[in-house]
Amino acid sequence: MKLTISQIARIVDARIVGEEDEVIHDIASFPQAKPGELTFASEPRFLKTIDQSQAGAIIVPTDFDHKVLNQFQGALLKCKNPRVSFFKVVSSIYPKKQITPFVSPDASIGKNVTIGKEVIIHPQVYIGDDVIIGDRVQLFPHVFIGDEVSIGDGSIVKPNVTIMEKSRIGKQVLIHSGTVIGSDGFGFAQQDDVHEKLEHTGYVQIDDHVEIGACNTIDRGTLGKTHIQQGVKTDNLVHIAHNVRVGKNTLLVAQVGIAGSASIGDNVILAGRAGVTGHIHVGDHTIVGPNAGVVSSVPSNQIVSGFPHMPHKKWLKIAAFIPRLLDFRKKILSLEQRVKKIETTRKKSENK
Amino acid sequence: MKLTISQIARIVDARIVGEEDEVIHDIASFPQAKPGELTFASEPRFLKTIDQSQAGAIIVPTDFDHKVLNQFQGALLKCKNPRVSFFKVVSSIYPKKQITPFVSPDASIGKNVTIGKEVIIHPQVYIGDDVIIGDRVQLFPHVFIGDEVSIGDGSIVKPNVTIMEKSRIGKQVLIHSGTVIGSDGFGFAQQDDVHEKLEHTGYVQIDDHVEIGACNTIDRGTLGKTHIQQGVKTDNLVHIAHNVRVGKNTLLVAQVGIAGSASIGDNVILAGRAGVTGHIHVGDHTIVGPNAGVVSSVPSNQIVSGFPHMPHKKWLKIAAFIPRLLDFRKKILSLEQRVKKIETTRKKSENK
Amino acid sequence: MKLTISQIARIVDARIVGEEDEVIHDIASFPQAKPGELTFASEPRFLKTIDQSQAGAIIVPTDFDHKVLNQFQGALLKCKNPRVSFFKVVSSIYPKKQITPFVSPDASIGKNVTIGKEVIIHPQVYIGDDVIIGDRVQLFPHVFIGDEVSIGDGSIVKPNVTIMEKSRIGKQVLIHSGTVIGSDGFGFAQQDDVHEKLEHTGYVQIDDHVEIGACNTIDRGTLGKTHIQQGVKTDNLVHIAHNVRVGKNTLLVAQVGIAGSASIGDNVILAGRAGVTGHIHVGDHTIVGPNAGVVSSVPSNQIVSGFPHMPHKKWLKIAAFIPRLLDFRKKILSLEQRVKKIETTRKKSENK
Repeated sequence: MKLTISQIARIVDARIVGEEDEVIHDIASFPQAKPGELTFASEPRFLKTIDQSQAGAIIVPTDFDHKVLNQFQGALLKCKNPRVSFFKVVSSIYPKKQITPFVSPDASIGKNVTIGKEVIIHPQVYIGDDVIIGDRVQLFPHVFIGDEVSIGDGSIVKPNVTIMEKSRIGKQVLIHSGTVIGSDGFGFAQQDDVHEKLEHTGYVQIDDHVEIGACNTIDRGTLGKTHIQQGVKTDNLVHIAHNVRVGKNTLLVAQVGIAGSASIGDNVILAGRAGVTGHIHVGDHTIVGPNAGVVSSVPSNQIVSGFPHMPHKKWLKIAAFIPRLLDFRKKILSLEQRVKKIETTRKKSENK
Repeated sequence: MKLTISQIARIVDARIVGEEDEVIHDIASFPQAKPGELTFASEPRFLKTIDQSQAGAIIVPTDFDHKVLNQFQGALLKCKNPRVSFFKVVSSIYPKKQITPFVSPDASIGKNVTIGKEVIIHPQVYIGDDVIIGDRVQLFPHVFIGDEVSIGDGSIVKPNVTIMEKSRIGKQVLIHSGTVIGSDGFGFAQQDDVHEKLEHTGYVQIDDHVEIGACNTIDRGTLGKTHIQQGVKTDNLVHIAHNVRVGKNTLLVAQVGIAGSASIGDNVILAGRAGVTGHIHVGDHTIVGPNAGVVSSVPSNQIVSGFPHMPHKKWLKIAAFIPRLLDFRKKILSLEQRVKKIETTRKKSENK
Repeated sequence: MKLTISQIARIVDARIVGEEDEVIHDIASFPQAKPGELTFASEPRFLKTIDQSQAGAIIVPTDFDHKVLNQFQGALLKCKNPRVSFFKVVSSIYPKKQITPFVSPDASIGKNVTIGKEVIIHPQVYIGDDVIIGDRVQLFPHVFIGDEVSIGDGSIVKPNVTIMEKSRIGKQVLIHSGTVIGSDGFGFAQQDDVHEKLEHTGYVQIDDHVEIGACNTIDRGTLGKTHIQQGVKTDNLVHIAHNVRVGKNTLLVAQVGIAGSASIGDNVILAGRAGVTGHIHVGDHTIVGPNAGVVSSVPSNQIVSGFPHMPHKKWLKIAAFIPRLLDFRKKILSLEQRVKKIETTRKKSENK
């Protein structure tokens, strides 16, 4: 969709510097933006080079001083948070395809299923018995919804997602493709060498406004629940074991793994491929570095890295020191010889 | 389902201390158990706090001395293995939904397919040609079964699982959602810069009583087989490359990766995210720690950790030492100066 | 299919040493090959033991001296690249099942879909609107193809693959099961504690002759594209974030993860479970070791390992040194005492 500068300014509540009737027909990243395209600049490295930009318009911070510009031909849109504002415009230029709600006759729907208003249920969806589907829910092809599952208003389940029995999905939840919710946890009882299956009768609860990435695995509780709380976002290939709690607004980056019964606080960040041991607690607002392994509970407001985890600043120093270990090996061996020499000379002189 | 204390005692062969006619209507973990609910206690931290428990009944070890209790109002059930016994009762209180066997007309079934007795084949299942499906097998929606696959009696394949051609699945096997069995291995022949595809004509064999977690990838043999032996259990997001052998009753915890042609012994444990290099052997009853990288063969009955792997006890000491490296860096630099000073003084005194 | 030695020699352009009318009915690995079976030997350990082999025929390098053999009963086939030649024969002995092209009436196909010649579209495939499917494309059951996707001639998409809207797939591409292409990247804008969703309007472009392993996740560009270039091969469970570029003929081994906007050069190898930080560049022909974490840009033609990454040779030495750290700890503590002793004696003697 095309928008004029002034239409865009209204969407993001911006002050215009330049031609308000110019037409924007597309969006682009800062280095790629061409005439007729909108971009944004919030980092200094971009703000410094606006004069070299060919962009049709650029969203900049309120306090950007446009008088420093000499050559820039496009319009500036000044507003509070350029990045957030830019993506608001993206949603206007690329409005989501409007689909008239429908329930495909090629979906397989069980007994005693309650379906809300304006839902979209694609062909090749499977829904079990005693399921509740909220208003405006979208289920894509090859989604499996087990018995006694509930899905809240406005939630979207992408293709090839599996939601096993008894899972409770909140409102405005988005689940990406390939993800499995409610698989059995890894719990067995050893009898001699054989591992006997324990029945996992718990469930998964996902609260409102959660986004789950592609190919995640979230196990049901062994007893009770695995709980993903409001506003959590997970990246791809994340593993969450049985009875884990992930607190509000926590971010789990790609390939993270959380072992059974661990409890992650609110507003935590687990960076890419971080791992958390079972039965421990990671405090609110704590950040765990990439590749780190958290092996015991961590208080709130910490930054930790490494395996086993340690304070991030310490880890940075140690990570910088490790490549120099061989130099220090040399130093030690040299010191040994020198000290030995001193000791020998001393003995000789004593023996004289 | 509700059960009386005496009914439960019969299921798990327990001695009752308390009212045998009390009714249990649910199960719970020890800290959460309320009146009318059954739980179990085997760890000292729980056994010590039974007097504070509100549980309707608690399964305890045979040798637990109930005379130490003053306030506990519920019943005790004394038996050998409280945890295993508890989960036996779980299966009775939450009996699996009984489904009358059926083959959905909305499944797509190929030519020359042999189907056993009392199977459940859900809608939207795809079965290729020349397939053999044993008795009481359950195939959930969106399962793909390739040509010439066989699946043994009593096996269950959860939704969205892919089993590629020629795979041989044993009896009483359970495969969780999103898992791929029989994908091509990562084998190419380099010709200048180009990687030419090698045909993978091997297959995957999974023996009886195996459980495969969600979103596993198990590649077929390049030639011959990839072999998952009896009683193996894998957690989620596990990768098993071409021509790997995983021995009997071995446990592979979440995010483990095993490279091509590696051979893992019987009763091995690979902890979370452990990795094993190709073409090496891990001996029977060996344990590999979390995040460890096994880079060469390991004999039987070892415990190893770290990357590259080393004896676990050594690794524990080193892992504890690494955060103190900077102190030792200081010590070394200080020693250097002190030794230099001694050397200088000595030279001066010699020169006198 | 059975082949005579002379037929095989014609397929791989080989010189025969032995009976050219002997019949080969199967293939096997070198240690397992029996009479009537073909294998190959290119490594010294196999070439040395040909006299012990029961194989019906063995493909060997052109310069192999067959006069050293005394007991080997089978035929030798001498040609340039035994491994590549062997797998050419494999394709002849196990020719792919020929399926008459068809479009299943049980596939769900959207509006304005262009379908090429001789395609195979299995039942339970879903194709959205405005899709272009090239000649000889094969789509397996439970494949999802979103709106505005294009798939080039000869490409094969295995079961349970998800290809989201706007993805552009080249010619002769092979995508294994469970993989997700075009999921949203992990990009949010934080407003207080809440993470607001950014619309991801970019797409994924996969060029010709690419092979993608099982259960990969390849995110669309936030703006613009995520680009997998010609001849790239990925193993299983690989994560490729938004706006990543993977250069020509690069290999990504199992469980690799690449963060957003990283650029990987041509002919690179990322070994198993290597990770690459966002927004950095890995140069052409560089090799990254297993488990390594690349935290800053790496020039071309390097070999790096470790986390943080360092030159591979250095890392090998450090990895060998780390298990000896405790010995060096001892040395340092001993040196401290000895130096202290020397200093004390000196002081005493000065004070005399």
